[in-house]
Amino acid sequence: MKFKDLEQYILKRQALNAALTLFSWDQDTEAPEESVEQTTTYAGILSHELFEVITDKKVKQLLLELESQNLSLEQKTIIKKWLKDIEKFEKIPVQKYQSHQELLMKAQRIWQKAKKENDYELFLPYLKQIVEEEKEFAKYRRNNEHYLYDVLLDDYEPGFQSQQLDQFFNMLKKEIIPLLQKIQNSTHIIDKTYNERYYDIDKQKTFNHWIAEYVGFDFNKGLMKESVHPFTTNFHNKDVRITTHYYPHNLESALFSTIHESGHALYEMNIADHITMTPIGVGASMGFHESQSRFYENIIGRSPLFWKPIYSKLQRTFEPLLDDVTFQHFIDGINKVQTNLIRTEADELTYSLHIMVRYEIEKKMFEEDIDYHQLPTLWNKLYKEYLGVTPSFDSEGILQDIHWAGGAFGYFPSYAIGSAIGAQIYAYMKKTTDIEEWILNGDFKKIKNYLRDNFHQYGAIYNTNELLQKVTGEPFNPQYYIDYLKEKYTQIYHLSH
Amino acid sequence: MKFKDLEQYILKRQALNAALTLFSWDQDTEAPEESVEQTTTYAGILSHELFEVITDKKVKQLLLELESQNLSLEQKTIIKKWLKDIEKFEKIPVQKYQSHQELLMKAQRIWQKAKKENDYELFLPYLKQIVEEEKEFAKYRRNNEHYLYDVLLDDYEPGFQSQQLDQFFNMLKKEIIPLLQKIQNSTHIIDKTYNERYYDIDKQKTFNHWIAEYVGFDFNKGLMKESVHPFTTNFHNKDVRITTHYYPHNLESALFSTIHESGHALYEMNIADHITMTPIGVGASMGFHESQSRFYENIIGRSPLFWKPIYSKLQRTFEPLLDDVTFQHFIDGINKVQTNLIRTEADELTYSLHIMVRYEIEKKMFEEDIDYHQLPTLWNKLYKEYLGVTPSFDSEGILQDIHWAGGAFGYFPSYAIGSAIGAQIYAYMKKTTDIEEWILNGDFKKIKNYLRDNFHQYGAIYNTNELLQKVTGEPFNPQYYIDYLKEKYTQIYHLSH
Repeated sequence: MKFKDLEQYILKRQALNAALTLFSWDQDTEAPEESVEQTTTYAGILSHELFEVITDKKVKQLLLELESQNLSLEQKTIIKKWLKDIEKFEKIPVQKYQSHQELLMKAQRIWQKAKKENDYELFLPYLKQIVEEEKEFAKYRRNNEHYLYDVLLDDYEPGFQSQQLDQFFNMLKKEIIPLLQKIQNSTHIIDKTYNERYYDIDKQKTFNHWIAEYVGFDFNKGLMKESVHPFTTNFHNKDVRITTHYYPHNLESALFSTIHESGHALYEMNIADHITMTPIGVGASMGFHESQSRFYENIIGRSPLFWKPIYSKLQRTFEPLLDDVTFQHFIDGINKVQTNLIRTEADELTYSLHIMVRYEIEKKMFEEDIDYHQLPTLWNKLYKEYLGVTPSFDSEGILQDIHWAGGAFGYFPSYAIGSAIGAQIYAYMKKTTDIEEWILNGDFKKIKNYLRDNFHQYGAIYNTNELLQKVTGEPFNPQYYIDYLKEKYTQIYHLSH
Repeated sequence: MKFKDLEQYILKRQALNAALTLFSWDQDTEAPEESVEQTTTYAGILSHELFEVITDKKVKQLLLELESQNLSLEQKTIIKKWLKDIEKFEKIPVQKYQSHQELLMKAQRIWQKAKKENDYELFLPYLKQIVEEEKEFAKYRRNNEHYLYDVLLDDYEPGFQSQQLDQFFNMLKKEIIPLLQKIQNSTHIIDKTYNERYYDIDKQKTFNHWIAEYVGFDFNKGLMKESVHPFTTNFHNKDVRITTHYYPHNLESALFSTIHESGHALYEMNIADHITMTPIGVGASMGFHESQSRFYENIIGRSPLFWKPIYSKLQRTFEPLLDDVTFQHFIDGINKVQTNLIRTEADELTYSLHIMVRYEIEKKMFEEDIDYHQLPTLWNKLYKEYLGVTPSFDSEGILQDIHWAGGAFGYFPSYAIGSAIGAQIYAYMKKTTDIEEWILNGDFKKIKNYLRDNFHQYGAIYNTNELLQKVTGEPFNPQYYIDYLKEKYTQIYHLSH
């Protein structure tokens, strides 16, 4: 048996995956309204085919034989990842897995209804059943993990456990909540009413395309379209697609989502040619992927260095709408802290606090015997405690995210991990490169090359901690994130140290 | 064994086919430039999977067992079609089939180069080898066909043989060539210089979307986009897509291609729900499909009845560009006979004469021992004889179409057959319905319903002759086409009868 024998299966797996990705892209961006049902039938069949390829007995045999051979790191990693995928499916009885998938499909419809009608009790029995089944599955799959929840965390963030995350969130609690309270009590009020003026959609489109290209998005290897919720998708490193959503009375929304998705896209475009069409031709983890999008969106994209050379272009594009908004006014505006109830509308400072609420509730659901009727109250209590705001109804509280209805537990922490990784990389780059000068000069090719050479090219060959250790000399360390936030917001809000 | 056992294979076949269609749609309309090579690899794998499903031994066994059972007409037709597909592949040795596919891929690249460099001799050895291999394959597949060429004709137009086509083209020769000559010698000159004014692309888009909807294209079940060459594609009856191409100095081009593709689209949208996701959820034949697009484009779309209620809207849209073009001037303009060298730019009258040239050369290639070096001379001679024009170089002569480089022999006649079927249906509708009133009133729902109930809903359950016999009481009869053209052009060019 040779690795070459595995290659046909790798390509089949990737081709089916690409077809499913394309169906999904198409549905999200242009498919006609009435197509959904019939097209979903086709996607379901291809999805079943993909499952068959991944769990093919012949493939497993091949992987087990290859496992002990003397292979390259890339080959070994593909084999390891594939065996992990098989294990995930194998340990769960097929019948149970299928009925769980059906439950999730139904739960997502019910969640939509519950959110619309502000009726948590309608969603409650589904949430409870999903968690019970997910717990059962996690038990089947448990290896050395102490906590059940750690089995799920590992799906999104290999190598991370709740112990490490507890420490991380405790740091946020100790340092960021007081910082937020200082800002909330500050007399320094930032005005950003300019953001709600009428910004012509065509002009927004032109500027957003330009800025995507400015930060390095390569339109020969990707494209940009519109969808209800912005996202990034890709088929391989030479076809990476992003979307945005334009609002006439919100200039920032599309702008920063474009820079955010461009960050995701640059990661995918930079994955090496020899692994892009394999199962490890993806990001190192959910959190690492998010670190790149937030690096571009927040650390770079909301900095004065970034806007120094291009703010006048923004002003000219929307003339005369921003004529009365000075450079400093604009920088303050895009960094204004606006504590609100909705995670997806959170600012850079409070985003991780939204995640903390979800993380704590998820842990409780998986490790304690809780009363599901009490969850909305718990949610509201934590929002009050961490963010200082309380939802008036569950649609803007516990019902706001689709994740749980889709069975995605252990996913939320990745968003916060990503923010922290971004800050850690930035701190290291400031020490060892001329990153600030690159940003000021709009020299995004240098930034792209640095990230490609040090992180992106490797795809999922290394996990988050391995990558950070390899490049910066230490594993994940959220202290850089705390320092970054404190320094940035102390300055913006003219706080005393 | 029950038909139900076949259904999973039907769905798998259709799902893979839909995925391939989507990849192709995506490449033609938006995929980034550098994506081609890697995406083609994926498409190749899915294409191979599709081949495996179609020729699966288990499926064949099942089909053979089901063949003798008491099933519905739809079920019987699916089985018959699938067995025909298997036979087509089975009779050709796999190795030969694969090397032929590679030859075709290469030949299409060479043809592009040859066309660009006006170098027929570069393409000659490929053309010769393709024909030789196609002949060999046709010999393997020959059943009762007298002529080898008939084996190929049957792929595109089941039930048609060259004997019938010879009669058809002889009628054209006898009736249409003299008609064309009369027009060429006529002193009645039609002006259509107005068509080359500058027509704003955005206004064209708005009008084209409107006219597609006007003739019945349902935007809840389809969409319209742009591509280099206009085409129609579909995944099932609730997702049918058309493209067009806008030229700033050619109003007609996009306009009539939109109506043409809408005709194709209406066919696909009207195929019955219970067969749309099966191998017979397609048009009855290439020719029948073309009959519907030409019915809408030419018979309806170039008639005074059609424009009577909407010409003022066209004028208003492009105000003041068409202010000096009277209704009659416009009708004459869109029906002006402009003999030229390029098939895809041909007018309604001369289109079939372009096809006749190709038909005669194809027959010679398959039935005679010809000198390939002499083909350009033969091409030019036939153009002079039938159309009265002579190419100055091969790029606008024998090298103009990609079809032969792709191994599509026996395909061209379908275009002419389609035009004739359209006229036959129109003659029958004039006798038995109020079609002219429907057109004049813009009552396209009635037209759609008539075509759906009589033809479209059946997909490929019946072939062309069966459908025409069933509805009009007689099989294919090109006399209606001859009569239609003679009447129409005699009037437009004020010729004496």
